[in-house]
Amino acid sequence: MIKVAVDAMGGDNAPVEIVKGVVEAVNENSKIKVYLTGVKDIVEKELALYTYDKDRIEVVNATEIIETAEPPVMAIRKKKDSSIVVALNLVHDGVCDAFVSAGSSGAVLVGGQLIIGRIKGVERPPLAPLIPTETGCSLLIDCGANVDAKPSQLVQFAKMGSVYMESVVGVKNPKVAIVNIGAEEEKGNALVKETFPLLKNCPEINFIGSIEARDIPTGYADVIVCEAFAGNIILKLYEGVGAMLLNKVKTGLMTSLRSKIGALLIKPALKRTLKGFSLEEQGGAPLLGLNGLVVKTHGSSKAIEIKNSVLQCATFKEQKINEKIKEKVILRDTD
Amino acid sequence: MIKVAVDAMGGDNAPVEIVKGVVEAVNENSKIKVYLTGVKDIVEKELALYTYDKDRIEVVNATEIIETAEPPVMAIRKKKDSSIVVALNLVHDGVCDAFVSAGSSGAVLVGGQLIIGRIKGVERPPLAPLIPTETGCSLLIDCGANVDAKPSQLVQFAKMGSVYMESVVGVKNPKVAIVNIGAEEEKGNALVKETFPLLKNCPEINFIGSIEARDIPTGYADVIVCEAFAGNIILKLYEGVGAMLLNKVKTGLMTSLRSKIGALLIKPALKRTLKGFSLEEQGGAPLLGLNGLVVKTHGSSKAIEIKNSVLQCATFKEQKINEKIKEKVILRDTD
Repeated sequence: MIKVAVDAMGGDNAPVEIVKGVVEAVNENSKIKVYLTGVKDIVEKELALYTYDKDRIEVVNATEIIETAEPPVMAIRKKKDSSIVVALNLVHDGVCDAFVSAGSSGAVLVGGQLIIGRIKGVERPPLAPLIPTETGCSLLIDCGANVDAKPSQLVQFAKMGSVYMESVVGVKNPKVAIVNIGAEEEKGNALVKETFPLLKNCPEINFIGSIEARDIPTGYADVIVCEAFAGNIILKLYEGVGAMLLNKVKTGLMTSLRSKIGALLIKPALKRTLKGFSLEEQGGAPLLGLNGLVVKTHGSSKAIEIKNSVLQCATFKEQKINEKIKEKVILRDTD
Repeated sequence: MIKVAVDAMGGDNAPVEIVKGVVEAVNENSKIKVYLTGVKDIVEKELALYTYDKDRIEVVNATEIIETAEPPVMAIRKKKDSSIVVALNLVHDGVCDAFVSAGSSGAVLVGGQLIIGRIKGVERPPLAPLIPTETGCSLLIDCGANVDAKPSQLVQFAKMGSVYMESVVGVKNPKVAIVNIGAEEEKGNALVKETFPLLKNCPEINFIGSIEARDIPTGYADVIVCEAFAGNIILKLYEGVGAMLLNKVKTGLMTSLRSKIGALLIKPALKRTLKGFSLEEQGGAPLLGLNGLVVKTHGSSKAIEIKNSVLQCATFKEQKINEKIKEKVILRDTD
């Protein structure tokens, strides 16, 4: 049985969509048991709406909620009875294998490190969302956990990202590239110049060199390595440019009678095509390198994302990702 | 008379589109004289196709061409008779006020600093393209000239960007923001944390705080400050995500007969709407803070961009941007 703690109170659509997603996940995979953390009365009232195997969803009471605006370190330390801290403790205590939350990113990242703790030898745990590309999706690692990371940390990110892409997403021998401002080896800032040769001499990964931001959406690389400041810009600009362009297209379609009729005709096809592009469709972002898995899903997550994130935890456990990280990332480092 | 040196040999469409754009510019503004640098026979043959005031376009022979792949510093030092070096010398010697090139970015940036030189007191000259937004355009400063810039340099970028946005683009009291990974003042990497309070205490600019990458396309800020590694990612991802999404939309429209008919109906409206979004439409990116103006246009520039860039040089001169930079950026610094 794979046991997943889920934050019932986190995100814009909690608890309704969270509970719905959890029910869908346990109904789809009979090897999963979920511990829903949150205000007991509220969560149980929501659960009462569904039919599911009562043995495989348990509500664990947590009376506090960490808000998105709260400073993360303080919140984790003070709100011991929050849905996030209670869930993290379930993983720390070995009751659960993994934790899924749509709540405060900062609290989830900080709490994951402080409460669950890093795998021995992992310098920093990176947050690694899957981003949509023309050909499928790529892993962006790190996108928010470690600004001003060091070269040795980026090398670990590259290795952990490779393991994840190969074992969880199923990409054979994934292509790894470092985000840079030009294709040539001598280009880049101090961090990239120092990291590039380390990646080049890394036998565990399929390093293909630099990737310019322009080529990220084409799917040129499977694992895209960068420190978190750059990664965060990439992730958020992806959203921003996408939203702006689609707005522009919609406005454009409303400018004449002719285009309005055309818009009605193209709507189904367009919707189908753009669905795969949505960041939400890709499920949650794993925080890798911890003694247990933490998956952070989008704050606006609906049931489908919560379900996918819980199922993702099962794959993570079944594929023994942490064992592989210990073997491929840590042992080799200390050879 | 405003005198502009133009690299006739730089870019994918040289010399055809360059010469065409130059002729259009001098025909549109009678106060402009252009010095076209390049292989004399080739340029004159192109020029012979057009009607224009012969006194206002002069060909200056330059027998060499700097290729995009050449290491910039070496190229500038060795190819003394290249179209770029000859043009830069015209500005250095005071024959010309400004220089426009669609050629090697590296060579133009390095050459601008080495040959024309910085305004006394300017620490680093930033490259500052205009990027399209939902409401118009914003100035992205710096997008490629200075990776690993220092806080004091970013402050100068903010001031120079404000002057440019106000005087050349015509935005009154432009809103200045620094690229960050969250809205709160305590967020960011070491560079941003150090720069934020300096910008906040800067009376010459209208500083509105941090901008997350997600909000850049909305036009939330007029001047977007960042060091060049981040700026380059923003600029290139803008292009990349835009191109990918439009491809997806096009592919989607071809999936059924119904959507194909719809596509025919929406085409004109869509084309009109998206035209303003193209990066090319915004003209060239100025390299600010030099003793003269250098404008780098896209490598794939057509005549329209070359024309706009040459006209932009006239506005730059007429608006006395360098005098304003000396007054607002430098004098205040040394107060």
